[in-house]
Amino acid sequence: MMTLSRYASQIPPFHVMALLERAQQLEAEGRDILHLEVGEPDFGTPPPVMEAIQRAMAQGRTGYTPAAGLPALRQAISDDYRERFGAEVPAARIVVTPGASGALQLALAALINPGEGVLLCDPGYPCNRQFVNLVGGDPQPFLLDAASHFDLSAAALEAAWLPSTRVAMVASPDNPTGNMLSPDTLAELVSVVRRRHGTLLVDEIYQGLCYTQPASTVLSQTDDVVVINSFSKYFCMTGWRLGWLVAPEPLVPAIERLAQNLFLAPSTPAQYGGLAALEEASMAILEQRHQLLARRRQCLLNGLAHLKLPVVSRADGAFYVYVDVSRYTHDSHAFCADLLERAGVAITPGVDFGEGHDHKRYVRLAYTCTESRLTEALHRLEHYLESL
Amino acid sequence: MMTLSRYASQIPPFHVMALLERAQQLEAEGRDILHLEVGEPDFGTPPPVMEAIQRAMAQGRTGYTPAAGLPALRQAISDDYRERFGAEVPAARIVVTPGASGALQLALAALINPGEGVLLCDPGYPCNRQFVNLVGGDPQPFLLDAASHFDLSAAALEAAWLPSTRVAMVASPDNPTGNMLSPDTLAELVSVVRRRHGTLLVDEIYQGLCYTQPASTVLSQTDDVVVINSFSKYFCMTGWRLGWLVAPEPLVPAIERLAQNLFLAPSTPAQYGGLAALEEASMAILEQRHQLLARRRQCLLNGLAHLKLPVVSRADGAFYVYVDVSRYTHDSHAFCADLLERAGVAITPGVDFGEGHDHKRYVRLAYTCTESRLTEALHRLEHYLESL
Repeated sequence: MMTLSRYASQIPPFHVMALLERAQQLEAEGRDILHLEVGEPDFGTPPPVMEAIQRAMAQGRTGYTPAAGLPALRQAISDDYRERFGAEVPAARIVVTPGASGALQLALAALINPGEGVLLCDPGYPCNRQFVNLVGGDPQPFLLDAASHFDLSAAALEAAWLPSTRVAMVASPDNPTGNMLSPDTLAELVSVVRRRHGTLLVDEIYQGLCYTQPASTVLSQTDDVVVINSFSKYFCMTGWRLGWLVAPEPLVPAIERLAQNLFLAPSTPAQYGGLAALEEASMAILEQRHQLLARRRQCLLNGLAHLKLPVVSRADGAFYVYVDVSRYTHDSHAFCADLLERAGVAITPGVDFGEGHDHKRYVRLAYTCTESRLTEALHRLEHYLESL
Repeated sequence: MMTLSRYASQIPPFHVMALLERAQQLEAEGRDILHLEVGEPDFGTPPPVMEAIQRAMAQGRTGYTPAAGLPALRQAISDDYRERFGAEVPAARIVVTPGASGALQLALAALINPGEGVLLCDPGYPCNRQFVNLVGGDPQPFLLDAASHFDLSAAALEAAWLPSTRVAMVASPDNPTGNMLSPDTLAELVSVVRRRHGTLLVDEIYQGLCYTQPASTVLSQTDDVVVINSFSKYFCMTGWRLGWLVAPEPLVPAIERLAQNLFLAPSTPAQYGGLAALEEASMAILEQRHQLLARRRQCLLNGLAHLKLPVVSRADGAFYVYVDVSRYTHDSHAFCADLLERAGVAITPGVDFGEGHDHKRYVRLAYTCTESRLTEALHRLEHYLESL
């Protein structure tokens, strides 16, 4: 009789997965389902990236690369930090990883001893706590203030810091709120965490997807930080599983050994794709897509305002808005299930993003489908709400 | 000041990496280096696999798949177990992973609580202990008997079992010895581990690469086992990072949640490649390559016999032989470094594969280059040994 580890046993399912499965079932039955639940762009990998991958394949580049990634890709990422963000990040500080998931795992395994605490924003990306639990760390919820758009304040973070806390993890732009941290807030966070002799871990995987302020990185403010990034979102390469991590240079050799042991190396063809993603031809396409997302965002925000459904987050970045549906339900999961069944609109219940708030008040909508599909979703939502 | 976790600090470097780096440096200076150190086939991904990946890309299949992999790929792997091995393994027991590395991580995170022991063969694949350490487990070395070709005996494994042991991990074919476990030995292992109320974890990533007995799987003997496999070696897809895990069905939902949290999903294009790898057109190519490997193996064994360098393992499978060089050195790492420098032949020192034996007596040679390159390597090795 095999028994599961305590770690594996405690991992809760994502509620959205059951909804997704049901959505697919309905589609198989011929229903038209509008997908506002999915956290991935609908654009597909940019053609120049695909072409680069095909060239790499034709040249037989299908073997292992170094564990930290192709030197040329590390250098290209470093160059991109200089060109787009004015940040000096030597290639030697960059480790290419199997998705941001790989980067998160490396970062937490490199920093956390069993029993040590990691402050995680609530609401936040639900997998973060499992990376902390994996290495025996203590996920410490840091409740964002619902009354002020779930904005993160450095003073509140300092107040939440416990004696056992070693790392504070923040995201900008954030999932599920779409909130961004201003350069000033980031500077305050850096100094709070430094004062506490901890490490600031910044998730920048939605970098570039911002609509009210320029794209930025904490790396233009300090070297004393660990950053997670990804080719999935802005670069539209989700299925290729390619991300990276930036760490202070003295930590990199050990992180590289970690990557060698845990992953061997990131996907080789994907890395050649990553190289092309950072070139001008791809960037031009990605910027057009960014502009499309900006229009979709406005379309969704206008529609929700018309429906008098309050967007409780700032929704300045990524492709998410966090919405209060408590006027209609005390159980947003049931609300999502019913909305899917009766109106064919799939959205994500708030309970997937934390436990500290009453997330049963909230739902997350992703604007990862076309404007006309978004408009249709808003119409169906309107009729659904009228029927309640 | 960021400090590394104890886990990250204790990971030793692979000695072969320093040799590889030096080999690349020598090549950059114009030297011809013969690579017998690399654990990956030199054949490149089979053309039908590449074509399938290109088709998938052209169809825009670059988004996330379910965490456990494409249902069609899980089914194709299940079918392959039936067709090639006569084993009934329902698709529901198969989880597709980012490489065998991903599968190893899932298996150990799913089975091991902090402080629980995992018996690991010495010599063995060096990363295994780091997967155990990651989750706070206790890697317990199980010394194979050098006097009998490092053959694994179930009785010896039972004797090595400690009160804290929960899992025994074995590989067939094995790295670095190339040894295979006979069906009888596997049956004995299954019953020993069952008697001890533990779990048997079998690494079958070199499955199909065998030269003296038919390919096999422990899954034709029992369902009560966890198996790791990979598209890297037999299927020549190293750089795509695609593997899989087989577990008893009741454990799979939790393993799937684990995969969802830790990896999101395996590479989508790679999975379409995996589907094609299991089809007849690819299998015919792979079987030809297998025959080439058989000839290379014989060429290398003949050459080593001529040089009177004892092959201490059975070398029945994978693409490795483990060789005793103690007639020439008491430090095989220094021997490897000198051989590279003076003869341009790169091989792997035994110290990378364990600590329990005097691995400074041994080196691992991989027959992952052509017969003519192998012959050249043997000539250079002969001259080098004469010069000592």
